[in-house]
Amino acid sequence: MSGWIAVAGLGPGAEALVTPEVTATLAQATDVIGYIPYVARVAPREGLVLHPSDNRVELDRAAHAIALAQAGRRVVIVSSGDPGVFAMASALFEGMEARPDCHDLDIRILPGITAMLAAAARAGAPLGHDFCAINLSDNLKPFSEVERRLRHAARGGFAMAFYNPRSASRPHQFTEVLRILREECERERLITFARAVSTPEERLLTVTLAEALPEMADMRTVVIVGNAATRRVGRWIYTPRSVSA
Amino acid sequence: MSGWIAVAGLGPGAEALVTPEVTATLAQATDVIGYIPYVARVAPREGLVLHPSDNRVELDRAAHAIALAQAGRRVVIVSSGDPGVFAMASALFEGMEARPDCHDLDIRILPGITAMLAAAARAGAPLGHDFCAINLSDNLKPFSEVERRLRHAARGGFAMAFYNPRSASRPHQFTEVLRILREECERERLITFARAVSTPEERLLTVTLAEALPEMADMRTVVIVGNAATRRVGRWIYTPRSVSA
Repeated sequence: MSGWIAVAGLGPGAEALVTPEVTATLAQATDVIGYIPYVARVAPREGLVLHPSDNRVELDRAAHAIALAQAGRRVVIVSSGDPGVFAMASALFEGMEARPDCHDLDIRILPGITAMLAAAARAGAPLGHDFCAINLSDNLKPFSEVERRLRHAARGGFAMAFYNPRSASRPHQFTEVLRILREECERERLITFARAVSTPEERLLTVTLAEALPEMADMRTVVIVGNAATRRVGRWIYTPRSVSA
Repeated sequence: MSGWIAVAGLGPGAEALVTPEVTATLAQATDVIGYIPYVARVAPREGLVLHPSDNRVELDRAAHAIALAQAGRRVVIVSSGDPGVFAMASALFEGMEARPDCHDLDIRILPGITAMLAAAARAGAPLGHDFCAINLSDNLKPFSEVERRLRHAARGGFAMAFYNPRSASRPHQFTEVLRILREECERERLITFARAVSTPEERLLTVTLAEALPEMADMRTVVIVGNAATRRVGRWIYTPRSVSA
């Protein structure tokens, strides 16, 4: 039997946001690899081996998946959200790069509902015009690069979604992000802090840039910054589709 | 009975990419509103009224949905992909803006798999690092705004996804986009043209910026431009997660 690897996005948390494609693929798997809380979302069953692992071992997971698939196993690497957005798909290809022996493996990337789009849907339509997604973690890039992107995004008129805005190990960085935004954007700019969307811990808060505080974000939060035209309508916020000349 | 509006994302085309949340909501609907080809994706059944409409009547659709919901109907406005990304969610809120009488309506936005993430999954992981999404249509904004965003995205080191890159009514604009990209990016920059992903008409093509031609895109194509580090591994392309200092 020939093995394969699927890198699957489990969506933001709710079962109702897992695509049928992912559900069907998990039903065919022999092995599930991923970060502990994501593997915990997969129902155990006979014949399925769960391989939960800790954070920051993405390349070990990739190597493990490759070895299992080469041995004929049917492997699903699970990510939350979408596997191609700050998640395991890039890590798998990075792990394959120096390994021409695995370039012919049967690999599929299965998209999922990424956190910023689940959060935007709950808030209204803040990403309804041109927008960008920025990973604020400086584990994988220097903060100077984050700053450069923030300034270009603001000057380009993009709405922005921030992943991994703040963690216990780097509590001060998001303070810097807010400082940079305050240099680039008006005080009334709307910011939505969307935590754990579609789970029982979901919490949504929209404030102005002037009112935003670093502690409004944690690692389970996606932060959405509107563009200059983003506004409230009733309990919703949205970004108009059009820009006048 | 009280009416409601759900704005639902049908994903890029395949049934296996429609979320269970959207499927369950369509099963409760009395009315489905949307662009003709999207409404055509909803199976007819007794008690369900389909209201297909032509392109560019988004605000008429919003007003129609509001009127139906206020009359107690259960209305689903369908978009392809995700309803919050260059689709009907923003149009609905725009339609509600001058209508305080409808601000208390029961409204839900149901996320879907947006085209750029389905396309990225098929190509590998080209959006695995910071990226932006730009609607290239100049129906709703002047082309000068498109140019400004392209230059900031390139200078900020973002990968880019382009929606609505080219239509019969504006065939020359994407030529301009390629010209601007050639001023900002190196010749070897990878570009993926992903057409009708997850449908029988799916077609994927990755070339360098030097090789890219305007006619590689049409209105059913999402174009993904990598960042400077985006590269091939086997038949895949991916953008590394990290940037060195």
